[in-house]
Amino acid sequence: MEAEVTPPINACLIIIGDEVLSGRTREANMQRLATWLEGLGIQLAEARVVPDEERAIITALNTCREQYTYVFTCGGIGPTHDDITTATIARAFGVPLVLDPRAVASLEAYYGAEGLNDARLKMAQVPKGGRLIENPVTGAPGFRLGNVFVMPGVPRIFEAMLELLTPRMLGGPARQSVTLRAMLRESDIATALAALQRQHSRVQIGSYPFMRDDEQGVALVLRSAEEDHLVQAKEAVAALLVAQGAELVEE
Amino acid sequence: MEAEVTPPINACLIIIGDEVLSGRTREANMQRLATWLEGLGIQLAEARVVPDEERAIITALNTCREQYTYVFTCGGIGPTHDDITTATIARAFGVPLVLDPRAVASLEAYYGAEGLNDARLKMAQVPKGGRLIENPVTGAPGFRLGNVFVMPGVPRIFEAMLELLTPRMLGGPARQSVTLRAMLRESDIATALAALQRQHSRVQIGSYPFMRDDEQGVALVLRSAEEDHLVQAKEAVAALLVAQGAELVEE
Repeated sequence: MEAEVTPPINACLIIIGDEVLSGRTREANMQRLATWLEGLGIQLAEARVVPDEERAIITALNTCREQYTYVFTCGGIGPTHDDITTATIARAFGVPLVLDPRAVASLEAYYGAEGLNDARLKMAQVPKGGRLIENPVTGAPGFRLGNVFVMPGVPRIFEAMLELLTPRMLGGPARQSVTLRAMLRESDIATALAALQRQHSRVQIGSYPFMRDDEQGVALVLRSAEEDHLVQAKEAVAALLVAQGAELVEE
Repeated sequence: MEAEVTPPINACLIIIGDEVLSGRTREANMQRLATWLEGLGIQLAEARVVPDEERAIITALNTCREQYTYVFTCGGIGPTHDDITTATIARAFGVPLVLDPRAVASLEAYYGAEGLNDARLKMAQVPKGGRLIENPVTGAPGFRLGNVFVMPGVPRIFEAMLELLTPRMLGGPARQSVTLRAMLRESDIATALAALQRQHSRVQIGSYPFMRDDEQGVALVLRSAEEDHLVQAKEAVAALLVAQGAELVEE
């Protein structure tokens, strides 16, 4: 009997940020999103960093929203002249921007009624049809439009919004993983490891070299949605490492 | 008289790595590459993270090598079954893989002649026409093919290769930048800042909010290849911040 094939639920992240591309800022949301998605049984299938330029954003967005179940953007939804994400997404979808009364209320709660200047009201504009994603930190919301989640770049707010989204996401069966580390050179085990990958085809085996002081080490990461297959593969890989005389660390 | 327009020298980074997309590993080469390129007067115009899958790699590679002056890849050039970058790049360019004698010599110097097993010799294969990029750390080289630089994912080796490439790169006039930080909310200055951006069109002004404890701060980053314009814009932005009562920190 063949295994049932369901299309994978996947996602793409588009980071909108000149500051990442110039090297000024170290990218800080990708790993958090990837880990969160893994827990939901959704695979992050691609990530892109694009500049704060309308054409670059539209090209990436329109390519990725066709290709993946979900798209997340981060960055460029603030009040300043270089925050062009919201307007650009409205243009990519061909819808107008509208002032969202709940977003106005959220900003008013944070800044006070007298504090609602034009720059802040810009953050209450949402492409027509967009549903707000609440911002529990600074009041300026994100939004979801179609399969696109539009989020801020500040990591603390990005994370807080993910927490709020968790119960609303439709995921798949979560993959489990196990990592085995040993201080040996992956080229010592590559041929035997390739054979184990062929034998354990329901498990994905990744081999990641690292350096510690001047020594080479390797982390072998096994992933599967099926626990019994994962356990069998893990035992086989562990036996290979021990046969090489390696001291094994399991994570 | 109109300013002379030269096409910008730019670059794209393609990170090949399931381990980054799964959240297991925090991406660690992008900022280093971006900073190095800035110093050479080359703008990192895009970055992508793709999985260790032939089709995804070929699509990203062929799109980006048409679009940008240079493309850098990192990851997937090791000895194991999941290292498919080199073979995939050969396929994308339509050229065969050949065993490079200098790469063999480099690996032999590191592992010893008796240590040259099949897995290690895999790392001496290069797409025909590729020129080696020396690896001063572990002997396994990267290579350049056309406008594509194929580099390893291990940060220490990636960095060491960049150092070796520095004198060989053709860049442009380097942009200078200055950063002004203040503990205020960017929405307090957004309208005035937009006016300053219009007045100082030869300078790119970026506004990056951050959180410190529970307070909002902003970093204003000014960039230009023309120092006199940069200085004028900096003075104007500093005056704006001081007029807001902010304590100014320059980086």
